[in-house]
Amino acid sequence: MSLSKKMGAEFFGTFWLVLGGCGSAVIAAAFPDVGIGLLGVSFAFGLTVLTMAFAIGHISGCHLNPAVSVGLMVGGRFPANELLPYIIAQVLGGIAGAGILYVIASGAPGFDLAAGFASNGFGEHSPGGYSMMAALVCEFVMTFMFLIVILGATDSRAPAGLAPIAIGLCLTLIHLISIPVTNTSVNPARSLAPALYVGGWALSQVWLFWLAPIAGAAAAAVVYKWLGSEEAA
Amino acid sequence: MSLSKKMGAEFFGTFWLVLGGCGSAVIAAAFPDVGIGLLGVSFAFGLTVLTMAFAIGHISGCHLNPAVSVGLMVGGRFPANELLPYIIAQVLGGIAGAGILYVIASGAPGFDLAAGFASNGFGEHSPGGYSMMAALVCEFVMTFMFLIVILGATDSRAPAGLAPIAIGLCLTLIHLISIPVTNTSVNPARSLAPALYVGGWALSQVWLFWLAPIAGAAAAAVVYKWLGSEEAA
Amino acid sequence: MSLSKKMGAEFFGTFWLVLGGCGSAVIAAAFPDVGIGLLGVSFAFGLTVLTMAFAIGHISGCHLNPAVSVGLMVGGRFPANELLPYIIAQVLGGIAGAGILYVIASGAPGFDLAAGFASNGFGEHSPGGYSMMAALVCEFVMTFMFLIVILGATDSRAPAGLAPIAIGLCLTLIHLISIPVTNTSVNPARSLAPALYVGGWALSQVWLFWLAPIAGAAAAAVVYKWLGSEEAA
Amino acid sequence: MSLSKKMGAEFFGTFWLVLGGCGSAVIAAAFPDVGIGLLGVSFAFGLTVLTMAFAIGHISGCHLNPAVSVGLMVGGRFPANELLPYIIAQVLGGIAGAGILYVIASGAPGFDLAAGFASNGFGEHSPGGYSMMAALVCEFVMTFMFLIVILGATDSRAPAGLAPIAIGLCLTLIHLISIPVTNTSVNPARSLAPALYVGGWALSQVWLFWLAPIAGAAAAAVVYKWLGSEEAA
Repeated sequence: MSLSKKMGAEFFGTFWLVLGGCGSAVIAAAFPDVGIGLLGVSFAFGLTVLTMAFAIGHISGCHLNPAVSVGLMVGGRFPANELLPYIIAQVLGGIAGAGILYVIASGAPGFDLAAGFASNGFGEHSPGGYSMMAALVCEFVMTFMFLIVILGATDSRAPAGLAPIAIGLCLTLIHLISIPVTNTSVNPARSLAPALYVGGWALSQVWLFWLAPIAGAAAAAVVYKWLGSEEAA
Repeated sequence: MSLSKKMGAEFFGTFWLVLGGCGSAVIAAAFPDVGIGLLGVSFAFGLTVLTMAFAIGHISGCHLNPAVSVGLMVGGRFPANELLPYIIAQVLGGIAGAGILYVIASGAPGFDLAAGFASNGFGEHSPGGYSMMAALVCEFVMTFMFLIVILGATDSRAPAGLAPIAIGLCLTLIHLISIPVTNTSVNPARSLAPALYVGGWALSQVWLFWLAPIAGAAAAAVVYKWLGSEEAA
Repeated sequence: MSLSKKMGAEFFGTFWLVLGGCGSAVIAAAFPDVGIGLLGVSFAFGLTVLTMAFAIGHISGCHLNPAVSVGLMVGGRFPANELLPYIIAQVLGGIAGAGILYVIASGAPGFDLAAGFASNGFGEHSPGGYSMMAALVCEFVMTFMFLIVILGATDSRAPAGLAPIAIGLCLTLIHLISIPVTNTSVNPARSLAPALYVGGWALSQVWLFWLAPIAGAAAAAVVYKWLGSEEAA
Repeated sequence: MSLSKKMGAEFFGTFWLVLGGCGSAVIAAAFPDVGIGLLGVSFAFGLTVLTMAFAIGHISGCHLNPAVSVGLMVGGRFPANELLPYIIAQVLGGIAGAGILYVIASGAPGFDLAAGFASNGFGEHSPGGYSMMAALVCEFVMTFMFLIVILGATDSRAPAGLAPIAIGLCLTLIHLISIPVTNTSVNPARSLAPALYVGGWALSQVWLFWLAPIAGAAAAAVVYKWLGSEEAA
């Protein structure tokens, strides 16, 4: 696969992650009486990854997430010279996804970007008022476990072909736990995209959602190197 | 497989899609206190496709959707001379599914066809009051991504046998995002069927749900031709 | 496999179907504020079949349902001389499941068997007040499609090993559509079990939930014989 | 695999089970208006097992549960000399998971450990006020069926590679039925962890959640030895 096709796949994949995940939150979560709630948003985020992992896994590996790319690089599964192109494609895809979401969502009466546009936040911008420290720990640990699942489920000894289900539903699980804490990131590209539209507090808090997920992912790669060694050559 | 059996499979499959998807919306979504909500309807639509893709994928390929058939034709995966028979079978199956739904639903006190019968709509007939432009963009983009997932998950390099899960749950995801916008179509046959029973506004808006999904599907086929090329012969 | 082990597997499987499906309805559906609703009950019923199909499919085929056994027999997939033993095991397993459910559920304050104990019903005993005719059509068509999915997903040309997912989630889908109509049966053994504890109206209506599912299953077997023929020998 | 790596895998797996399962309950279940409810908690518990079974199944077998380890030992699938190390790793992992959950959850205004911290209980500490006898029967039977599914889905004749889906979703199903009865344990390590933080009543009731699950698991192993025999060598 050429790098341009890999970047194209990462672009569309992250586009789908942001449009689908944030879109379900903005458009459908609190729809009167029959809204999908945080449970529906959790499934939406997970299913963006599950569906794209089946669709483009054979093209780019379907990272859709700078923290995942870093974790896979640290774990020796992804070449360092492709890291920056992947992250660029992910960030651009996320921005495009948020842009299309803006076009659709602003077509409804009463749409208000200031309601957050599914941005991640902590402290007074945490959905449940969780502190910065809680947010840091939560994003670190959630991304850590996300990478353990990614590294384990794509291990050559794991059942072949089923990693998309494990990884997608792991993202669902992570959202089931942590939306009230930070609106759930575990993905710097997902965090940056809506923050660029909202600006202000959202942009000023986005650093945490680059720092903690990337640190958690790198730590998991180190742990899995030990845990999963003895792999057949 | 003879064409008549393929048409039979598409008929029953689209029958199930409309009966199951629209049926869950009409019968169970807003049931007092314990209704399944938009989350349940999203799963119902997705599971009609997941179940039929396992059941009839080996017979007809399980399109159940004129936009899917067009997209697969543009992508070179489906012969043009079978397009019209497939679409006819899909439309008839959808009409039959809506008919059985009418028989069941009208057996309850207070049933009112004018409540919409799960028809798709925009503007004042959008569940959330979304504009025609938002509806056009939404249906185009959702069907575009649906076809990317279909084309990718059925690619010879994707995990064998799991495409029904990817494709079915992609339809669930699409509904999790977009029911408030248009009641979600991405499928001309699904849109036409209830509209024929409701008439009036539903029929007058059905053009959008043929135009946007088919255009989105064709565009995705062009994009995937580039993205997924280099496929082993 | 000896017939006694097949019967044992069908006993435990139907035990699980009734305990899990009806149990979720009786214990958790309407739990204050955080109850699982009809969506949760739909997943519970489907997951009883999904889990047991993986667990005992290699022992008995995991029918758990007299209508399924009849449909498979009509479709030429199940020997007629095992039909009666299977149905006996299924009925006994269902009764045992409902018995354990009674022991657990009656351990809570305010438990009232007269609330229905998840029995199936129509007319004034339909959750949504659906007529007997709507119930007949609904149970016939839902079981018809259930068998189409079962026969198709276990066809030798369908993806190997994934039928438990297709079939289990098909039962989830069926419940997503039809709980308000009849509380959803599509399974005579599931209907008989709680009715034996409730008595009265529940027992007097149980005939419909033997007649319609078995007729729908047999009809589907005839249709699939045509639809799915040309199978490789 | 060395025992230390197996223990490491069991530690992280049970860490994830308690953090994810109990975390979703403490943080997200009753979030105002859009909370995930018992349905979301049920999926969270199940998905911790599904994800880890794909991630570490090839390292430790992914028990994450002393009752599962006992059941597998009784069933002849797990060596007795590894039982104690596994249970120690599971208990420590659970305690660590509850510890991280405490750090995160206590970062929100109004957090109150005395609300239960997702501890298991019966009688006046049962969510629905279920009696000790109902709790005993429920935990015994639920763990019994959990082990039937585990033993069956990992049988050499079951579809290869799919046991994580069967087992994870079985835990979801068990929670869909029984959260109102005991908050659902079927896992002594899961029960002990939050009880150590809550103390008092939670600790004083934890005996039931060691006794009943382990007894149920052992009984299932005996039953499956008969049910599943005749396995190809």
